[in-house]
Amino acid sequence: MMITSTSNQQIKNIIKLQKSNKARREQQVFLVEGIRMFREIPQQYLVKAYVTEEWQEQLSENWIEGETYEVVSNGVFREISDTQTPQGVLAIVQQRVYQRKDLLGGIINSENSTEMTECRRQEVPCILVLENVQDPGNLGTILRTAEGAGVTGIMMSKDTVDVYNSKVVRSTMGAIFRMPFCYEEDIYQGVSWLQEQGIACYAAHLKGQVFYGYDYRQPCCFFIGNEGNGLTAELTAMANQQIQIPMVGQVESLNAATAATVLMYEAMRQRYNG
Amino acid sequence: MMITSTSNQQIKNIIKLQKSNKARREQQVFLVEGIRMFREIPQQYLVKAYVTEEWQEQLSENWIEGETYEVVSNGVFREISDTQTPQGVLAIVQQRVYQRKDLLGGIINSENSTEMTECRRQEVPCILVLENVQDPGNLGTILRTAEGAGVTGIMMSKDTVDVYNSKVVRSTMGAIFRMPFCYEEDIYQGVSWLQEQGIACYAAHLKGQVFYGYDYRQPCCFFIGNEGNGLTAELTAMANQQIQIPMVGQVESLNAATAATVLMYEAMRQRYNG
Repeated sequence: MMITSTSNQQIKNIIKLQKSNKARREQQVFLVEGIRMFREIPQQYLVKAYVTEEWQEQLSENWIEGETYEVVSNGVFREISDTQTPQGVLAIVQQRVYQRKDLLGGIINSENSTEMTECRRQEVPCILVLENVQDPGNLGTILRTAEGAGVTGIMMSKDTVDVYNSKVVRSTMGAIFRMPFCYEEDIYQGVSWLQEQGIACYAAHLKGQVFYGYDYRQPCCFFIGNEGNGLTAELTAMANQQIQIPMVGQVESLNAATAATVLMYEAMRQRYNG
Repeated sequence: MMITSTSNQQIKNIIKLQKSNKARREQQVFLVEGIRMFREIPQQYLVKAYVTEEWQEQLSENWIEGETYEVVSNGVFREISDTQTPQGVLAIVQQRVYQRKDLLGGIINSENSTEMTECRRQEVPCILVLENVQDPGNLGTILRTAEGAGVTGIMMSKDTVDVYNSKVVRSTMGAIFRMPFCYEEDIYQGVSWLQEQGIACYAAHLKGQVFYGYDYRQPCCFFIGNEGNGLTAELTAMANQQIQIPMVGQVESLNAATAATVLMYEAMRQRYNG
């Protein structure tokens, strides 16, 4: 039976999940929208799907057997959707819980990978440490790029934007389902743990040494700071090396996701070329 | 005298300039918001500034002599501002007109540059060709990164998002005032012209050769395509070489600005290391 009212309990809950980080955390779920992202949801994590009538028909041929889903009216769908042009498919998905050791790498499903020396990369940790990154688009893009660049995991300070925010989820283009990450109550403890694992820590800092010439084929991690303020002095001080991305012209800094991209892909280049 | 009404002709015009690409083009101006961006406006291009009363006071000590500005009420400012938390300073700025040859490089004001071999880079063109890039944030970030990476100019197909769109301007963090760019009515003619100047054209394409191992110290340009569809077959076919950025995991592609970043900074790396 189609849900036509926003006072339906399930619908009220989705609207709450859309807005509230706390609600998502308490229920250990998040929302995924759009057919493309929907298809990437690992089946064991799908809790329930909500579709409009027209999408139910379009989906029927590709619909996965045995799934629970509800049909909702277009009006209700507009209310639960976070996008301006809703695609008619929204899912509640269970959050994955990672441990710190999951950030160190492991077996990546490499079905769609370009021909690369993946084995070596997966055996050598390459980690991002994000401190107070606030822009959802930045965080999502970082996850997407990190997966592509073979980063093994992402560690975040607890004041970093919620990775299960809908805009973050959307910007990851599916990497949210595959990239291991964790939030650290105390980022300094998290970083200390990385260092105990023998991982060299590089802080992206405007006053660091030019970043070329360090060996990122070894276990390494990169610290990326807040969009406006960069890294705190405290976290910077914990790095084994402060590194700087050269800039010409009058730009004062690079965007946080841009800086992360340059560093991750330099590690990729070195590891690729061996 | 403070402007307190949105029916004021100047205010009506600003609202039009905020919304309309056509109006900006006809008047050959664009809008710049916020104190940080305001300070980067080259004085000869400033047409007129609009500030709130409280900002007039805060600005007085840093205010540049002889500038024309108007004070507007907070209510009016909220109407003309494109941001959710207006900073109280908005300027009408004259558009710069660049020729194709301006994309080839020249003297960059290197006051704030990191210590680099700038002279060499400025003498060797490094150009981005953007085909139908649609996301304002992407285009702005590309301009910002391009300036940092020492790109000499940006050529765009006419269906690329307007660089004078307020969200683009804001995302450039000032690079809009310094990075030469042009829109081509016919992008194929534009690219042919680049090739006549001896510039090697590399198309970023998922089916290209891995991009390491080409010499970007020579005059070169990179083609970057639309966010959803990539480069058209026609433009791809014009490239001297199709290149691919390696990806692992299951990501299908990188964000357009991310791909541009990886390529620009590989050129930077090669030129930096000589």
